[in-house]
Amino acid sequence: MKTLKYARLENNARTIVTVGSVQIGGPQVVVMAGPCAVEGREQLISISSVLKAMGAGMLRGGAFKPRTSPYSFRGLADEGLKMLAEAREVTGLPVVTEVMDARDVELVAKYADMLQIGSRNMQNYTLLQEVGDSGKPVLLKRGLSATLEEWLLAAEYILATGNHQVVLCERGIRTFETWTRNTVDITAIPAVKELSHLPVILDPSHGTGRWKMVPPVAKAAVAAGADGLLIEVHPKPENALSDGPQSLTPENFQKLMNELEPLAKAVGRSI
Amino acid sequence: MKTLKYARLENNARTIVTVGSVQIGGPQVVVMAGPCAVEGREQLISISSVLKAMGAGMLRGGAFKPRTSPYSFRGLADEGLKMLAEAREVTGLPVVTEVMDARDVELVAKYADMLQIGSRNMQNYTLLQEVGDSGKPVLLKRGLSATLEEWLLAAEYILATGNHQVVLCERGIRTFETWTRNTVDITAIPAVKELSHLPVILDPSHGTGRWKMVPPVAKAAVAAGADGLLIEVHPKPENALSDGPQSLTPENFQKLMNELEPLAKAVGRSI
Amino acid sequence: MKTLKYARLENNARTIVTVGSVQIGGPQVVVMAGPCAVEGREQLISISSVLKAMGAGMLRGGAFKPRTSPYSFRGLADEGLKMLAEAREVTGLPVVTEVMDARDVELVAKYADMLQIGSRNMQNYTLLQEVGDSGKPVLLKRGLSATLEEWLLAAEYILATGNHQVVLCERGIRTFETWTRNTVDITAIPAVKELSHLPVILDPSHGTGRWKMVPPVAKAAVAAGADGLLIEVHPKPENALSDGPQSLTPENFQKLMNELEPLAKAVGRSI
Amino acid sequence: MKTLKYARLENNARTIVTVGSVQIGGPQVVVMAGPCAVEGREQLISISSVLKAMGAGMLRGGAFKPRTSPYSFRGLADEGLKMLAEAREVTGLPVVTEVMDARDVELVAKYADMLQIGSRNMQNYTLLQEVGDSGKPVLLKRGLSATLEEWLLAAEYILATGNHQVVLCERGIRTFETWTRNTVDITAIPAVKELSHLPVILDPSHGTGRWKMVPPVAKAAVAAGADGLLIEVHPKPENALSDGPQSLTPENFQKLMNELEPLAKAVGRSI
Repeated sequence: MKTLKYARLENNARTIVTVGSVQIGGPQVVVMAGPCAVEGREQLISISSVLKAMGAGMLRGGAFKPRTSPYSFRGLADEGLKMLAEAREVTGLPVVTEVMDARDVELVAKYADMLQIGSRNMQNYTLLQEVGDSGKPVLLKRGLSATLEEWLLAAEYILATGNHQVVLCERGIRTFETWTRNTVDITAIPAVKELSHLPVILDPSHGTGRWKMVPPVAKAAVAAGADGLLIEVHPKPENALSDGPQSLTPENFQKLMNELEPLAKAVGRSI
Repeated sequence: MKTLKYARLENNARTIVTVGSVQIGGPQVVVMAGPCAVEGREQLISISSVLKAMGAGMLRGGAFKPRTSPYSFRGLADEGLKMLAEAREVTGLPVVTEVMDARDVELVAKYADMLQIGSRNMQNYTLLQEVGDSGKPVLLKRGLSATLEEWLLAAEYILATGNHQVVLCERGIRTFETWTRNTVDITAIPAVKELSHLPVILDPSHGTGRWKMVPPVAKAAVAAGADGLLIEVHPKPENALSDGPQSLTPENFQKLMNELEPLAKAVGRSI
Repeated sequence: MKTLKYARLENNARTIVTVGSVQIGGPQVVVMAGPCAVEGREQLISISSVLKAMGAGMLRGGAFKPRTSPYSFRGLADEGLKMLAEAREVTGLPVVTEVMDARDVELVAKYADMLQIGSRNMQNYTLLQEVGDSGKPVLLKRGLSATLEEWLLAAEYILATGNHQVVLCERGIRTFETWTRNTVDITAIPAVKELSHLPVILDPSHGTGRWKMVPPVAKAAVAAGADGLLIEVHPKPENALSDGPQSLTPENFQKLMNELEPLAKAVGRSI
Repeated sequence: MKTLKYARLENNARTIVTVGSVQIGGPQVVVMAGPCAVEGREQLISISSVLKAMGAGMLRGGAFKPRTSPYSFRGLADEGLKMLAEAREVTGLPVVTEVMDARDVELVAKYADMLQIGSRNMQNYTLLQEVGDSGKPVLLKRGLSATLEEWLLAAEYILATGNHQVVLCERGIRTFETWTRNTVDITAIPAVKELSHLPVILDPSHGTGRWKMVPPVAKAAVAAGADGLLIEVHPKPENALSDGPQSLTPENFQKLMNELEPLAKAVGRSI
């Protein structure tokens, strides 16, 4: 691909993305945590307050859920968005949530602080353009089988609209290995730092698909230079409507946060 | 995935999809041919007439082109659609073309006889729903790294709207092999026949990325039971705005058609 | 890899490999059939005679079996080799069988007509050298994740000994798809024809791992230009000590041979 | 996977492997460093002393080199082994080196402290048995496309001989991504800890294929719980006979060792 062209900043400066009071790409490692899907108002507000107290910097939760089968739970939509906004009011945590359809961008942008583009939509170019035009910060997940180059060029679709508030999220790629849900490409973290000016975070929950693997892989990401983490936490993973097996309990999340602190310090960051 | 649920027909009947005067899934192997992208009016009409004379059953051509980089040629859009419709008037060949955005479904459906969902959008669920609702026949390409199950469940999103006019298209999956653009999963042809009631065709052009590989792989597909082929033909592949290296010249297309005839007969089909 | 160097024949001639009275790479498509593992004397002789009558050109069967777990059945070794030789005496079919250890090459070469290098050993370079030095015809299976280039360079290890009697065997590569045991790379057939002077055959049994997929994929291989097929047949697949699910019954093998005949003719070959 | 059987230790104890004065699997993270291939006596002794002074715990270097092409440099063989033994005398660092042929095990075991099984030979079962029988500690690299299960079952071939001195080495798997040489499966580190009693280390040099990626990925491995690292260091990477692009200079190795120290401490280990 000789026509490759990534936008560059002057003097090789790096982009810092600002979401509410949070800065991604600066000295602090930002932990975005929350349930896979928004399942109910009280549950969400309760877990959000707990996560805030444990050190989470942002709240994640899905209102629109992409599901492989049309017969699975597909999210609470508008209702879910309102609950997320309410949880932000209560906790002060900025909210990141997925948008799947270009026609929903305006609606989601009304409630969320950051728009997430999921893996399946990484090359949904009209959606990329629309979130770019919204001016909101964007979290761009890597496609299941996207090369680094394709991922960075997808980001370029957003950057080309003039919106530079883009954070990349490695979330595991599809390989032959089946013990894990996906294969976390840990090298993607330093590779993005080498090839692009954008911040990059890691999602160990989707990346591994097994909650026991989440803490060691989260630690690996911080050691490798990640600017943040996206972690699924559910009060009762065994009852979750989606992604239970990869969700941490609040207790395990607290334990992980405690372990991450000295690690972040060891690589010159805070958390 | 225990929740797997594919719709079934009574008595294990198989679906036949009707596009204009063409039937896909019946005794005839349908060859859809044309340029990757619509590049100009005269060129399109001229090549369409040639393809028709050589035995093509449908015309393919892109008006909206998904491109990895935002800086590549992205298609003629509305103008391209009109040219395709005009080529149909002249030749009588039904037209299949890609739609990438749910908001364009109505527009594309006005001009095309069959709506194509490209690989990158196989799990763009709102788009699947929209083409389903349009009532038009749909050509659903397999995602670059979609399992057979995910592909069939994506089809289910369309079937769930009540629109059963769906044809599946294997177009190569992403593997470690780089000599070919993708790896054609030839077993997908009999696998779809085993698992689903829908017709299935093969795209050897995208599947291999090399025009010299197109004829042998096209023959393999017919021998394996494919209901059709999707083949890129360009009057001057070396000047094509996209996908030149994988396009056949009209001469080579004619040669392939001649070779396919006895093969189709050998497996009890016509072409 | 800039140092790539494949040996070439003068005038782009193609190699024909002679095994007993059989020629691989000539006008005839050679079908090598037999059980995965040699399990017993009488069973082997009985099935060999049946296969011979049905049109098989060579007999396959494993005496040394590579197994993922050390606790699985690992073959009858010397006893198995003697049974294979006896089956050849009875039927006249040349025998191909796997050798896994450089120290066994002499022993296996004493009984077999063609030495098979299995997928796991494609880059076992000292074994390649040893089978090369034996002067016997070699069947070189593609490694599970070998690129075309690595496969052809592995062949080069044998050719470099002066032994040019090498047949390549595509047997499926490892990908993310799990419905099939491996993914048959059908394009490998014409690709080898393009890049090398060596004959190439296909093993649809290991390639698909499902007996129902074997006939359509075998037909695809012949249509794509394969010089032969390697097919597992077992009198009672449900009782096989290994690879039962991918073995044809003799009845299904007969049916396949009947279907292959007109196909071979349609591509200008006999079977 | 019903026949899966991994040996277990009583009370879920973990194995510690002893190589000379070095313990792998204990509190210390062991760094094995050295050139890809032994290229000459003086160069090797000189670099070994430097690495020792910088904190390396073991010396690595290839005497027998598996090469994709038979026309590449294939190692100094016996001469290389003697140089490695001499470097050990001078520095006191235990030596790990690859053995590729069952017939060479006795020879290599005479000079080396630990026998390495390379990726290409992970399922070379007669070689596994032979290194098992040698009684020497073994470093078992993961095959290029081996699942966790296949890797652990390959280890079982060695364990079944009664030799329990086995260390596993993740070195990247083959995926579609081509910017890196392989894709480091970082989750393999905690996965091995979960599924097996054996120590596990990581080779970021082969895993990434780019020296700039080696330090961040080495740090990720330590954070994820690796018991050691295998790192290529060459005095002049641009002149290396193999693997130059992925080799660190001694200066960069020193820098990495300095950065690893606080990280190891942060996860409760020393280095």
